Amino acid sequence: MDDQEFETAMAELTADRKHGASELARRCLDTLSRSAGNASAKDSDELAQLLKRRCDKLIACRPSMAPIRNLLAEWCLDLDSRTGLSLRALRAAAVNTADDLIRRSGEAVQQTVAHAVEQIGDGKRIITHSLSSTLLAVFERLKDRKVQAVITESRPLNEGYLLASRLAEWKIPTELITEAQMGLAVAQADLALVGADTLLPDGSLVNKAGTYLLALAARDRGVPFWVCCESFKRIRERGREMELEEMDATELSAPDLPGTRIRNVYFDITPARLISLWIDEKGIYQTLGDFEP
Amino acid sequence: MDDQEFETAMAELTADRKHGASELARRCLDTLSRSAGNASAKDSDELAQLLKRRCDKLIACRPSMAPIRNLLAEWCLDLDSRTGLSLRALRAAAVNTADDLIRRSGEAVQQTVAHAVEQIGDGKRIITHSLSSTLLAVFERLKDRKVQAVITESRPLNEGYLLASRLAEWKIPTELITEAQMGLAVAQADLALVGADTLLPDGSLVNKAGTYLLALAARDRGVPFWVCCESFKRIRERGREMELEEMDATELSAPDLPGTRIRNVYFDITPARLISLWIDEKGIYQTLGDFEP
Repeated sequence: MDDQEFETAMAELTADRKHGASELARRCLDTLSRSAGNASAKDSDELAQLLKRRCDKLIACRPSMAPIRNLLAEWCLDLDSRTGLSLRALRAAAVNTADDLIRRSGEAVQQTVAHAVEQIGDGKRIITHSLSSTLLAVFERLKDRKVQAVITESRPLNEGYLLASRLAEWKIPTELITEAQMGLAVAQADLALVGADTLLPDGSLVNKAGTYLLALAARDRGVPFWVCCESFKRIRERGREMELEEMDATELSAPDLPGTRIRNVYFDITPARLISLWIDEKGIYQTLGDFEP
Repeated sequence: MDDQEFETAMAELTADRKHGASELARRCLDTLSRSAGNASAKDSDELAQLLKRRCDKLIACRPSMAPIRNLLAEWCLDLDSRTGLSLRALRAAAVNTADDLIRRSGEAVQQTVAHAVEQIGDGKRIITHSLSSTLLAVFERLKDRKVQAVITESRPLNEGYLLASRLAEWKIPTELITEAQMGLAVAQADLALVGADTLLPDGSLVNKAGTYLLALAARDRGVPFWVCCESFKRIRERGREMELEEMDATELSAPDLPGTRIRNVYFDITPARLISLWIDEKGIYQTLGDFEP
């Protein structure tokens, strides 16, 4: 993967609105694996420098997504430990580590899904917001278990329509609502269930903007609000400022008026106090105290 | 106004998404005034029957809007009291009463706006949701008083764009957001301020869907949430079931999928406990106890 291919991959990653943080993290690792495999370098030092630069650039593309930071940091740490290797051996090691992390990330998601499905059980009416590949996998596994879905459009780009089409394929009875109707719809649901882009050290949730509103409404209506994500999505260092990505204002297709600033912040933060259950690949956590640090 | 003209007026009222409940109530009164003026009837009894039928039909068109019910009920009560009049005298009385109620409704809105403007004061950053003619009048009067606005698109029909264009004319600095961003934006506001379609007997608010979410976020962030509407919007009889109008699902322009029901409920209910101030033409009310029954 030469510089130009890498720049293209990075631009795609930055612009991607259709895939969640886990999926994009695995794509980053794949980009690094291919870089390690064939990026031009005269020796192992030059390769290591190039890979670490690319790693940093990929992390900076999507600052609201912890799994990119976490998985790439783990890969980088492994790279740093590989001293004294030939160029060829370093390439092989870096490729293997990336592929191994891709596998572990995928397995963590599958385990998380298995725990969620077991915990949810049969016949539930589940409200969610935004599109999450983890939630998709949960719905797929619940499709013969009398599950019903209530899903949002997810403005501005309406990724809820993609979710709706998958649920329709699986013949899951679904209601599609505007975000504005979340307060009405949550009262008829058994459970509000969302994925995550990032979990903060205190258990707070960074997810698509509007998630905080759903959590507030769920709490107000006495409906449980669960977060379902693998532990690669957790940020463990306290005190780091969380950057909430803002995307291009033109995505809203709103009129351009003098003195009017169109805002398109993609993420909001749901405080841990509004979350009634966390689910990850290791199990379920009902209180922050149970929640493994 | 013959039957066909009346049916047309009723269809327009039912389909109207651009005007608030006060404005539509005055249009209903105008329709009745024109009916009283020239609908064909052989005597005053027949005219009274016809007018009362039309009155009931207009009320049924927009069941979530109390001012239509209230103003038309008052007009009907007056009509009932006019016994023994000639056809001509009944026409004149019914027209006069309708015109008088239109005037009183307009004055009540203006007085409400005056109280709101005084209470808000200078230099405030105000977040609102949906389009309200009362709020429009408030912003117009605050335009030279360093006011800033944060407004929502208001899906599905984006009446927030109309609000944005008026605020731009008045050179009021404005941020336009998706409903999903209300939780983020409310934290930067001094005040959340909304109009009403209806106030329930306990002070709860029926307004455009999403208002409840804004109120929850305002409460969670410690931002005051005020409701500003004339007392014609209050329902006084307790125990009546509130019907929340659902409009045509095609307004969402969402894909039509098998097994997917697209919901388009226009109104939600914000409990009185989330409201920190009510403003009407008589003054301001900080607690339900102060709020004149």
